[in-house]
Amino acid sequence: MARQVCSHLSAEFADALSEARDLLKEIFRTRQDVVIAPGSSSLGIEMAIANSIEPGDEVLVVASGYYADRIALMVRRHRGVPVKVEAPLRRCIPVERVAEACDAHPEARALCVVHVETSTGVVNPVRELGRLARRRGLLYIVDAVSSVGGMDVRVDEWGMDYCITGPQKALAAPPGLALLSVSERALEVASSRREEPFTFYMDVRGWVRATREPLKRYVTHAVLLVLALREALRLVLEEGLERRFRRHEALADAMRAGLRALGMELFPEEAYAAPTLTAVEVPEGLSSRALVRAVLEEGVRVSAGWGELADRILRVGHMGNVGPEHILRTLGALEKAMAKLGREVSGGVEAAAARLSEFEEDLLRPPDEVPELGAA
Amino acid sequence: MARQVCSHLSAEFADALSEARDLLKEIFRTRQDVVIAPGSSSLGIEMAIANSIEPGDEVLVVASGYYADRIALMVRRHRGVPVKVEAPLRRCIPVERVAEACDAHPEARALCVVHVETSTGVVNPVRELGRLARRRGLLYIVDAVSSVGGMDVRVDEWGMDYCITGPQKALAAPPGLALLSVSERALEVASSRREEPFTFYMDVRGWVRATREPLKRYVTHAVLLVLALREALRLVLEEGLERRFRRHEALADAMRAGLRALGMELFPEEAYAAPTLTAVEVPEGLSSRALVRAVLEEGVRVSAGWGELADRILRVGHMGNVGPEHILRTLGALEKAMAKLGREVSGGVEAAAARLSEFEEDLLRPPDEVPELGAA
Repeated sequence: MARQVCSHLSAEFADALSEARDLLKEIFRTRQDVVIAPGSSSLGIEMAIANSIEPGDEVLVVASGYYADRIALMVRRHRGVPVKVEAPLRRCIPVERVAEACDAHPEARALCVVHVETSTGVVNPVRELGRLARRRGLLYIVDAVSSVGGMDVRVDEWGMDYCITGPQKALAAPPGLALLSVSERALEVASSRREEPFTFYMDVRGWVRATREPLKRYVTHAVLLVLALREALRLVLEEGLERRFRRHEALADAMRAGLRALGMELFPEEAYAAPTLTAVEVPEGLSSRALVRAVLEEGVRVSAGWGELADRILRVGHMGNVGPEHILRTLGALEKAMAKLGREVSGGVEAAAARLSEFEEDLLRPPDEVPELGAA
Repeated sequence: MARQVCSHLSAEFADALSEARDLLKEIFRTRQDVVIAPGSSSLGIEMAIANSIEPGDEVLVVASGYYADRIALMVRRHRGVPVKVEAPLRRCIPVERVAEACDAHPEARALCVVHVETSTGVVNPVRELGRLARRRGLLYIVDAVSSVGGMDVRVDEWGMDYCITGPQKALAAPPGLALLSVSERALEVASSRREEPFTFYMDVRGWVRATREPLKRYVTHAVLLVLALREALRLVLEEGLERRFRRHEALADAMRAGLRALGMELFPEEAYAAPTLTAVEVPEGLSSRALVRAVLEEGVRVSAGWGELADRILRVGHMGNVGPEHILRTLGALEKAMAKLGREVSGGVEAAAARLSEFEEDLLRPPDEVPELGAA
């Protein structure tokens, strides 16, 4: 990004946006439209809602945690009626529970789910829910912010109408863009509303046009972020999606082994734990907020929980261009931090290293090649 | 921007956001709130509207060109009723015409105006309109995208409730952020609505909190763009606002002299021409679109007009960290391009150079110091 800004109307920028868009289609596994817009992932999620519903429409929302609650808030803002389908905290939503909600709300317009609920580390069954949504004629909106690029996401095969992610998670690019796929069906719905959507900036028709034909301006684009995104997406596909997913699984596996050795239990049941981030319960009597601060002093950033779980849960991200050394360094920092807080523990690094040694070394290496400064 | 991304929750980022915010307050000349949000300037303008009006509210919009039309569109999206006050094409809106519109629409809620209408290069009297808005109890929303950083804008003194700009114009930072001031009155209105605004992402209350207290997250921020913005704002204030405005005026003066020598007449009446960009009519029989293409072949980007004027008008930007060499190079490229299109002209560069020589050389130099790579 250390370069002169080119014009958002230039052929150079149009090429970058077109390429980023096409690479993103490969990663989303879609042949339909994708949109790249300046803003955060939250903007992308709200864009999906803004264009899918009209006032009074019911929207089923799988209530899996903090990010799902925010989707419900967005639905209300666009004058829809969110119907929360409560999910168990430590495991994914049972599909039959959503099916029951569909029965109870036959007029519902859309189904929203968070693929990896970042607040708990739980993975939801987006594939199965996609089948349900299709059968019931619901628009299907998936918040895949903490999954795309780190685990399998198949937009077309799994019937997603909107799949939303951000550059700064498993795709390992700088934040500041909303990335989303838009199905033909979603576009049809957006184009045949009774009333215009409530916003101009989130009008998906404008963004689809602007991403299809980057020389036609919609608003000024975040030029440098798009150039950086293109580079990051090239690296993702250079590594290869399957390989990248296996790396994420291997690293997650090692991280879990290390955390367990330090006396921390996985928060989700193991079958539902995400490969992109791990949430654990801190040992009785320890404050996860204090632990976060102590770990930060060791130069490593982890996170506490949200809401009622804020001080009980520790969340560790391991997505993007992360390798074994990040896992080991994080566990080492945790050991030191716990010692500082009066809990002598050990064996975390060793347990993770042992697990890592079971994998081919080459598989574990992220595509960390940094493009030469000044190069296009 | 050639650096590792820091976390949007880190103290380093919070420091950068706080400093950028405070520098921006100096530039806006406000002691009230400013907001820095990931998105384009259009997002900032829509944010002002989204939080100011409720369904059915009338909004006076000074209809000065393309960007004003888009404000009217945004008002409709938020279920307001835009009342367009037609402005003459080549000069600013007469304040009394707006006063008459106020008389005709005593229930109107807000007055919106574009300071420098980028589509015509006309400057509107935002100071006088601010007095009118205050007297009539209207919320006052100013699109200052093509003015802030290149000419005098006084948010508090001129009574602006929202003043919106972007980093990529006269502030000379990379695009991808919405920058806006928010008055106490605007916040009161946003906090005492009958109904919630129609969007979450544009809720100004959330953004004011997030910009006041950068450690409290709202959404993931565009970290690198904020770091670059801070650097750019430091340069703006290092040069000094008054000095920077005089530089813009001097360069505009030279550009106009050069364009006239090439046979192109200013589109706005001179008294209303912006110091940040110049719009001229191309000579009879010449297509401004063809001219834009021919100039681009010389490595310089200028723009055609909008709408009906698309092929008749040429627009040349000269805002940001621009110096005499940019003015001369642009004029030289124009001469060559016109020759290619069969119009031999000359004397543009000389006329501009003569005008430039009347100014102190030091005044004309932009703050082009590029921070060392790797430095914070």
